Amino acid sequence: MSCDKEQELILNCRGNLENLLRRRFFVIPSFEIYGGVAGLFDYGPPGCALKAEIEGLWRKHFILHEDMLEISATCLTPYSALKASGHVDRFTDFMITDTKTNDYYRADKVLEEYAANRLSKNSNNPPKSEAERSELELIIIQAGSYNSDEIRRCLDKYSILSPSGAEWSNPCPFNLMFKTKIGPKQSEDDGKCNTGFLRPETAQGIFVNFRRLLDYNGKKLPFAAAQIGLGFRNEIAPRNGLLRVREFQMAEIEHFVHPERKNHPKFFIVENLCLPLYPRSSQLNNTNVIKNMTLKEAVHGPNKVIDNETLAYFLARSHLFFKSIGINIGGLRFRQHLETEMAHYASDCWDAEILTSYGWIECAGHADRSCYDLIQHSKSAKVDLLASERYDEPQIRPFVKLLLNRPLIGKTFKQEAPKVIEVLQDIANKCDMSVEEALKREGSYNLNYKYCSDHTKYKWEITREMVNFELTSKRVTEEHFIPAVIEPSFGIGRIIYCVLEHSFRIRDDESLNQVNGEKINVNKDIQTSIGEMQRCYLSIPPIIAPIKCSILPISSNIIFNDIINIIRDECIGMGISCKLDTSSASIGRRYARTDEIGIPFGITVDFQTIKDNTVTLRERDTMKQVRLHSSEVVKIISELSYQKLIWSDVLKMYPLFTQQDE
Amino acid sequence: MSCDKEQELILNCRGNLENLLRRRFFVIPSFEIYGGVAGLFDYGPPGCALKAEIEGLWRKHFILHEDMLEISATCLTPYSALKASGHVDRFTDFMITDTKTNDYYRADKVLEEYAANRLSKNSNNPPKSEAERSELELIIIQAGSYNSDEIRRCLDKYSILSPSGAEWSNPCPFNLMFKTKIGPKQSEDDGKCNTGFLRPETAQGIFVNFRRLLDYNGKKLPFAAAQIGLGFRNEIAPRNGLLRVREFQMAEIEHFVHPERKNHPKFFIVENLCLPLYPRSSQLNNTNVIKNMTLKEAVHGPNKVIDNETLAYFLARSHLFFKSIGINIGGLRFRQHLETEMAHYASDCWDAEILTSYGWIECAGHADRSCYDLIQHSKSAKVDLLASERYDEPQIRPFVKLLLNRPLIGKTFKQEAPKVIEVLQDIANKCDMSVEEALKREGSYNLNYKYCSDHTKYKWEITREMVNFELTSKRVTEEHFIPAVIEPSFGIGRIIYCVLEHSFRIRDDESLNQVNGEKINVNKDIQTSIGEMQRCYLSIPPIIAPIKCSILPISSNIIFNDIINIIRDECIGMGISCKLDTSSASIGRRYARTDEIGIPFGITVDFQTIKDNTVTLRERDTMKQVRLHSSEVVKIISELSYQKLIWSDVLKMYPLFTQQDE
Repeated sequence: MSCDKEQELILNCRGNLENLLRRRFFVIPSFEIYGGVAGLFDYGPPGCALKAEIEGLWRKHFILHEDMLEISATCLTPYSALKASGHVDRFTDFMITDTKTNDYYRADKVLEEYAANRLSKNSNNPPKSEAERSELELIIIQAGSYNSDEIRRCLDKYSILSPSGAEWSNPCPFNLMFKTKIGPKQSEDDGKCNTGFLRPETAQGIFVNFRRLLDYNGKKLPFAAAQIGLGFRNEIAPRNGLLRVREFQMAEIEHFVHPERKNHPKFFIVENLCLPLYPRSSQLNNTNVIKNMTLKEAVHGPNKVIDNETLAYFLARSHLFFKSIGINIGGLRFRQHLETEMAHYASDCWDAEILTSYGWIECAGHADRSCYDLIQHSKSAKVDLLASERYDEPQIRPFVKLLLNRPLIGKTFKQEAPKVIEVLQDIANKCDMSVEEALKREGSYNLNYKYCSDHTKYKWEITREMVNFELTSKRVTEEHFIPAVIEPSFGIGRIIYCVLEHSFRIRDDESLNQVNGEKINVNKDIQTSIGEMQRCYLSIPPIIAPIKCSILPISSNIIFNDIINIIRDECIGMGISCKLDTSSASIGRRYARTDEIGIPFGITVDFQTIKDNTVTLRERDTMKQVRLHSSEVVKIISELSYQKLIWSDVLKMYPLFTQQDE
Repeated sequence: MSCDKEQELILNCRGNLENLLRRRFFVIPSFEIYGGVAGLFDYGPPGCALKAEIEGLWRKHFILHEDMLEISATCLTPYSALKASGHVDRFTDFMITDTKTNDYYRADKVLEEYAANRLSKNSNNPPKSEAERSELELIIIQAGSYNSDEIRRCLDKYSILSPSGAEWSNPCPFNLMFKTKIGPKQSEDDGKCNTGFLRPETAQGIFVNFRRLLDYNGKKLPFAAAQIGLGFRNEIAPRNGLLRVREFQMAEIEHFVHPERKNHPKFFIVENLCLPLYPRSSQLNNTNVIKNMTLKEAVHGPNKVIDNETLAYFLARSHLFFKSIGINIGGLRFRQHLETEMAHYASDCWDAEILTSYGWIECAGHADRSCYDLIQHSKSAKVDLLASERYDEPQIRPFVKLLLNRPLIGKTFKQEAPKVIEVLQDIANKCDMSVEEALKREGSYNLNYKYCSDHTKYKWEITREMVNFELTSKRVTEEHFIPAVIEPSFGIGRIIYCVLEHSFRIRDDESLNQVNGEKINVNKDIQTSIGEMQRCYLSIPPIIAPIKCSILPISSNIIFNDIINIIRDECIGMGISCKLDTSSASIGRRYARTDEIGIPFGITVDFQTIKDNTVTLRERDTMKQVRLHSSEVVKIISELSYQKLIWSDVLKMYPLFTQQDE
């Protein structure tokens, strides 16, 4: 098949899926009757149930299985916390404006789209040289981390125009946080007083509670805290349906660990698991090669690519999670962030990306955030966010004593003196003797910004008379430290969309004319009418299916009511969600409707049931049916739903049902 | 006991509870390290789990049991939807300012507090007459519905001063919605363009999706939709901890029903249930009498107080829900709204109120909102939000045909003509012939505002020449109508607080010295140290307990590790949340810690376990223990947790364990 044909087929499938999702009220644009709001979506009954099932499984797979501490913090966040975390200053995208229409665009997306168009097979302006091709390929990878100048240069170099054919404005940063006022106070300075934001991630709610969490955990490290909740980003121009939205459910884990001991006690369990890794080197060489490596190789081998065991352990857990919710493993890769993509404090970062009709989509990040967040909050809030570890035996450690001439420092630096002393103390705390050596050698030393953790630019001349660093040692029984954080972070909405795309199926015409694999004659009219309904279905794994079973009487005859109610009550009692369809539509049409919303099992009550209390149980993907006693059926469905039984077992346990009941 | 003593005891209990909730990280002020933000709270691990359990039970009790359609809509809401719902104009509280300190206060709360202080037993300014006493009592009931003038008058009449002794400013309405901008557009008119709010209730997300929901339900009425999610209210001056917060989890149901047929098919199941009702009449007569009435009496009896069966059915379901989560039924009442409290469109409204140390607290509302919301959205969005019902047989209905002289109306009313025609059509639609009769009689008629559904004030003179209303009849096979809505709405955070207060217990000293009811000798020192820890506990019902069981080895000896891991894995497999405590604290101290966070069952592994694989199972409230085989214990806990077994059954099944292991 040619690439174009394939592309057309993919887009056709997407169209069918998106139509299904709207029609069956999985997901629809919010405030649809008011024309909708870009980037906002509501989940209808099946979508809402699917979301609950995926969140529930996530909670079980991560929080329960790993003994994490789950918390629930607020969305409303005061200025102070997000100033400290860096979001007030740096949580921005570059925005450019079409100077004719005044419409807003995200600069990086405009550049990426331009490059992708030129590189596409049927571009009318293909790259003029191999060098230009490489340049364009680099734009796609790097545009997201360009600064204002780089964007401008790129727009100019390729003379990129807006959709209306006009010039682009200069890029300006747009903060992606939704801003509001908490409380009635109308302050004059817009900056701080009672300004609040909607949280852009749930992580900060965990960091600010670090002390409480550490106490709750009996002051022991490592431990992980987790949170499932909403995040908000005021996207400049949201597109791509569910993949770029302004309000979204997240599930985040913050694993706190000693910054120098990031090994993981359970790493041995996953070390032989082979993961599809897409490391930095493959991306920059543009080899596009995904390396299948065991985690042992990836962390401890000569071609080490993953920074540490804990990060690798979480990649493994994520891989298993995605597999369990029906992600086609051939369409999953772990892509390492480029140096230019990572925050300056991060030491390694891997995105779980899933292949969809929109290309590879980031669905989970796994970042080693180092100690950055706790340091920032500790400084801003002026509280200790330290953990401690007792040594088995006391240890002797180097210690630098700081001897200060405070009057001289005060006289020299005036109001800056406390800052100078703080920086000198920092140097001493790090047992760094280089300043002392310089002072010995030269008598004076220019303290420059590299010593200053908050990146203030200053330059102070320190003299021998002001300070002495004295290297000594001390006996320590415990160590105090700011823990490092490893953060697996999942976007639930994106995962839901990927599950839906990966489970979307179109039955071939053959299978429609078969019952249990036996070809049968179907009246042409029925074939067409049922066929069109039956074409699409969702092969969602039973464990996360929004509704586990349907209950369908063969006709709307009231003699079926009693048995239906008994089965339904049993479902509710066992916590098996079910959907009763007593409408007068044909049984085939009703099966098709349940297939469309991904109900994996169907119980059909027919006239035989009245005689001997047996019912049929139908499985969605194979469309095969077995006949069994009604008192057993709900238990069997429960076992099928929670992976204690698979369908092929059931086929062996009970007789196949082959009668066509339409 | 004197009232003062009792009050002191209550406040003392509250102090102990709130201390426990902070200390054990159930709930703490958000952004505590930054000094907190009034009205924002975070749930730590046990609080978060308790919230999840209560929400899960609510979902089962209401959504699954009643086959409701659950949806999940966004918090961000555009201006248009909340303008239509009336929130932009009317979702306000009156605010008054201390003219000296410029602090903000809620006017109604200031008045209520003033009246309550004067009425309190040890007031230094008691009411001077019976008349004044009645006035003050009425203020407490009605201040919430006072308008600006009434508030001013009340402040002046009693010369109420601010806490700083200054005059109060004039009251002004403060809109309680958090406002933000959706998207980067910086519009000039602050009013509409891309202004958004955080939803003040989840209900509107259901109303705007009414058409989709009706379709999903096969176009059949009645049906209910439900939503569990966040609501936001920018309270002027939040106080009372968890009871008045700015961000809160809600669980709301919108039951859509024919406006004239609000009977409920399952009413017969609950009609003999006796509920503690506090109707309007008791409140206004200030009799304070709660009437225990069966729902049959309350809806269909001669002293009818509840408007309809559906509303009563939901009161019953709420009552059962509150009972199942451990609310002391003696501290629960259903209070009917006064006419002055209700929105103008509501036809009846009952709050479920729970008695706490803060007094009676509204935890759920049950409002008959009539057709108001759907009418408003239908008009604003210009879409039909109609349901229809087919008659069994076609019916003959009166029908008024409207004959218009459009040129004359156009010439007379110019640009107002379409509005005039709309009003005339409305009159015809209602089969209202009074205008026709007036025109016949007088030749002209003044159309006034009573005909105008949007309350515009106008006056148009209509003449005979302009219009004829012709009464005729038509054959109808189905009826189209805008459904009425009955809304049970629950505040999850308040319910959590009430559950905690109602389950808070202090063990008397006696019980501390007893094991299984047998008095034993305890060393005085141990008694004190354990005693203080053990004093408080939470008797949370197992079905919603945040953690179902603890696993405690009698000592930290590693020989227990295997059996502990087996039991823990079995818990995870069966979905039973458990907490392992292998710390070196004494077993008594560890029991006390688990009691404090409301863990109902404790498995203790001891040296006997190593010999014969038996463990002890301890119940929190009785502190009794039985001994049973370790392979049975998790199943027993699961049955105890999901109400298939009660503790007294277990006491009969297994031998009591009476050895003191400390």
